[in-house]
Amino acid sequence: MKMHLDCPSCFLNQAIRTGGLLNCSDSCLWEMVKGCGQVISQVNEDLPPPQNAVALYDMIAEKAGVKDPFYKLKKESTAHALSLYPELKRKIKGHKDSLEAALRFAACGNVIDYGISSDFDLLKEVEKALATRFSMWEYDAFLKGLSKTDWILYLGDNCGETVFDRLLIEELQKPVKYAVRGGPIINDVTEEDARDAGLHQVAEIVSTGYRAPGIVLKECSDTFRELFASAPMVISKGQGNFETLSDDDRDIFFIFKIKCKVVSNFLDLPLNTMFLGRTNAQAG
Amino acid sequence: MKMHLDCPSCFLNQAIRTGGLLNCSDSCLWEMVKGCGQVISQVNEDLPPPQNAVALYDMIAEKAGVKDPFYKLKKESTAHALSLYPELKRKIKGHKDSLEAALRFAACGNVIDYGISSDFDLLKEVEKALATRFSMWEYDAFLKGLSKTDWILYLGDNCGETVFDRLLIEELQKPVKYAVRGGPIINDVTEEDARDAGLHQVAEIVSTGYRAPGIVLKECSDTFRELFASAPMVISKGQGNFETLSDDDRDIFFIFKIKCKVVSNFLDLPLNTMFLGRTNAQAG
Repeated sequence: MKMHLDCPSCFLNQAIRTGGLLNCSDSCLWEMVKGCGQVISQVNEDLPPPQNAVALYDMIAEKAGVKDPFYKLKKESTAHALSLYPELKRKIKGHKDSLEAALRFAACGNVIDYGISSDFDLLKEVEKALATRFSMWEYDAFLKGLSKTDWILYLGDNCGETVFDRLLIEELQKPVKYAVRGGPIINDVTEEDARDAGLHQVAEIVSTGYRAPGIVLKECSDTFRELFASAPMVISKGQGNFETLSDDDRDIFFIFKIKCKVVSNFLDLPLNTMFLGRTNAQAG
Repeated sequence: MKMHLDCPSCFLNQAIRTGGLLNCSDSCLWEMVKGCGQVISQVNEDLPPPQNAVALYDMIAEKAGVKDPFYKLKKESTAHALSLYPELKRKIKGHKDSLEAALRFAACGNVIDYGISSDFDLLKEVEKALATRFSMWEYDAFLKGLSKTDWILYLGDNCGETVFDRLLIEELQKPVKYAVRGGPIINDVTEEDARDAGLHQVAEIVSTGYRAPGIVLKECSDTFRELFASAPMVISKGQGNFETLSDDDRDIFFIFKIKCKVVSNFLDLPLNTMFLGRTNAQAG
C-alpha cells in the first residue's frame, strides 16, 4: 500500500515519541520535528509508509546522535519476553490445540509493552493482548498451507515479539528461515536481536539486506528476493511488513494487529483488531 | 503562547482540510502536504502558532493557485449569518439581560458551521452553540470594565462571526474600533469582509496592518500598535488572537472557544468549552 495523506502527521508523532523515549531535550525534540518536516517535504507518496520511514529514522538517529537509538530498549524487550518463555511454553502445551495457541500468542506478541516493570505485569499484558479480537482468522487455510509446505519463510518484525515468534516456530514443525532487517531501524529485529531471542536454535536466520521497517523487495538483496520468490509458504509478522507487501502478487499469511486508521480503512476492518489471513488467496 | 510540539501535525491537518475545501486533486493535496513539510522544517518554535501559520497559508494559496482561497466561503458565511440577523436581534432584545445574551451569541459565533444549507439549520446550529458551557465567565469584571471605559478596541476574528460581533457591539453602547486583518488569511475578517457584515455602521474599522490569523503586535503597523496601547478596553475574539496575545502584559477580555488540546492544556481548562475572561486581571 502507498502512503496516505494521514501518514505524515503520524511521522511527526513518531519523531516526538521516539525523541521522548530517548529523553531528548526540548530543543532536540524541535530539531527532530523540523527534520521530520524536511523528510515530509521529500516524501514519495507512491511508496509504502515504511519505505519513507527509513529517512525519518535516519534523521532521528542523526539528531539524537546515536546510531541505533533503540539498542537498549531492544535488549530489554528481548530479555523481558525471554523471562516469560517457560510460562508461555506451558500455556501453549496445555492448550487443546497448541498450534492455535502459539499463533494467538505470536499475534499478541506484536502488541505488548515490553517496557513495563515486572514479569507479573508483563504476563498480565499477555493476557490482555490475548483477549484482542481477530477480525480475520483464516486458520483453516493456514493449516492447509502448513500441511503442504516443505519449509517456511518467516518475516520477523519487532524485538520482544521475536520470543513469541520462536514459540510459534517450535509448533510449526517445519524448517523455517527467519528473515531479519539488514540493519537497525526502530525496534525491528536484526540478526543480533534474533540470536538474543534464541531464534537461531529453531530457524535459519536470514537478512533481507535492507534496513526498512518492512519488506521493500526491490531494495532487498538478490539472495533474499530469490528466497522470497521460491518459498513455498510465507508468514509475515507485523503491520510494517503488511504495508510493504500488501500489493504483492504472491500468497502470504499475514499476522498483525491493525494499529492505525489508514490500514484499517485499507482492509475495511476495525482498528485495534488482530489479523490472520491473506490478501491473495490463490493458494486457497 | 509559543508553538507546541503538537502544532506541526495540526498544520498538516489544516493543509489537507483546506485543500479538501478547495476541491484540490490528490496530487495537489500531496503538493500541499510536502509544502507543509517545508514550512514545518523552518518553523520558529518561539513564535505563536498563528504567526507560523502565515507561511502555511501562503504555501496553500500558492499550491492552490488562488490569492484568497477562502474568498467565496467568506462571502457565503457573512451572507448566511446576516440572514439570521433579525431573528438574533429579537432573541437578544427579548432576553432579560440583553448584553449577556449578546456576549453569549458573540462567543458562539466563533463555533458555527456557516457552510450548512438552510437558515433553519443555521438557527439550530446557533441553538447548539449556545448550549456550550463556559469554563470561564468573568461577566462581572466585563461589566465593570465596560462601565469605566470611554471606547473599546474590538479585535475581530472570522467571517460570519462578524455578524455576531456586530450584535454585541450594538449592545455595548460605547464607541468601538473594530480591528481586521491587514490582508486575506484563512477565513479571517478583512476590511471588505467587515463592511459586508455591516460593521462600518456600528464601529470604526481599523486594520492591524499584518496578515496573520492573530494579533502579532511587533508585525502590526505603528498606528495599530498605538491604538492597542492606548485603548482603555480591549475585547479579543477567537483562539488565534488569544494565542498571539496570551503573553501580553495589558488587560484584555478574551472571548473564544477552546478548540485544541494545546490551548486547553495552556489554560488548564477543558477542550470545547467557551472562555470569557482575562489572563492579566490587573484592571480588576
